[in-house]
Amino acid sequence: MMEYEVKIRVTDPGPLRARLAGLGIRPSSRLHERDLYFNAPGRDFGKTDEALRIRTTAEGSSLTYKGPRLGLTGVKAREEIIVPIGSGDAMAKLLERLGFTRTTAVEKDRVTYRVEGTYVALDEVKGLGSFVEIEAPAGLGEAEAVALIGRVRELLGVMGEEIPLSYLELILAKR
Amino acid sequence: MMEYEVKIRVTDPGPLRARLAGLGIRPSSRLHERDLYFNAPGRDFGKTDEALRIRTTAEGSSLTYKGPRLGLTGVKAREEIIVPIGSGDAMAKLLERLGFTRTTAVEKDRVTYRVEGTYVALDEVKGLGSFVEIEAPAGLGEAEAVALIGRVRELLGVMGEEIPLSYLELILAKR
Repeated sequence: MMEYEVKIRVTDPGPLRARLAGLGIRPSSRLHERDLYFNAPGRDFGKTDEALRIRTTAEGSSLTYKGPRLGLTGVKAREEIIVPIGSGDAMAKLLERLGFTRTTAVEKDRVTYRVEGTYVALDEVKGLGSFVEIEAPAGLGEAEAVALIGRVRELLGVMGEEIPLSYLELILAKR
Repeated sequence: MMEYEVKIRVTDPGPLRARLAGLGIRPSSRLHERDLYFNAPGRDFGKTDEALRIRTTAEGSSLTYKGPRLGLTGVKAREEIIVPIGSGDAMAKLLERLGFTRTTAVEKDRVTYRVEGTYVALDEVKGLGSFVEIEAPAGLGEAEAVALIGRVRELLGVMGEEIPLSYLELILAKR
């Protein structure tokens, strides 16, 4: 599946929450997400622009691969493969046996809303601050996804520049 | 976890089934197992004596890593890490993106019995024939595991030589 999304820094999430409430949109989930990123034995994901992570929440764990970013439009587009897993700890050990190494952990509180079919995530990222991510639903082509994300940005009054970097990269850049 | 097990070829599974029935032991599960093995991008698991596979049954899928065999006693001992996964197809694609390659599929009908705490599997392996595998329960040390497996072999009257090879290796050896 291709993932299409934008990420924008939010200095104060208050007005965005108020706008969502005003539109009658309530959170569909509130989760604390712990992401553990890995690097590969034979190639450097920082250079190939790939990512491999184990995400753990109260609802369970998953393993996610993200391919290199392809977006030319401001909207970040990349292949994403997500596999639910029975144990994050066992998967971490298995990856280590295969030669993968743990790199960085990213922790955030994420409140998700469904808006016009998109997933709008209001994130409070440990050490980074607040961001909103708007992701198109799976199965859309690029043009449709970009147009839909633009409409939702307008609806929610989300201003500010699109940040092309992942939270992992933003954390690494701060070091 | 360490896995301790023996594998013995069974020319005719009839007498073993009769012995189990005579002891009042009924199958605890009957499953068709499809195992898809992968090789690593940076090392040859055939040479390092490791294995990575996706197993799919009617009950779900799992990803398993097996470390090099350590057994010096006839009983095969190796590290085993098993992670239940939500989708075998998605995991196969994810592994391929990481540079792993599909090697061989192994299919079998497995009937499992619990005997004195061990897992006794009567396997009908596609292209190979019938085998019985006796695996010690998790958490036993090597000496205990070897002694217990020996007692169960005697109880079930399982004669014949221990085969140190995996089904994957037996299939590759036939080619």
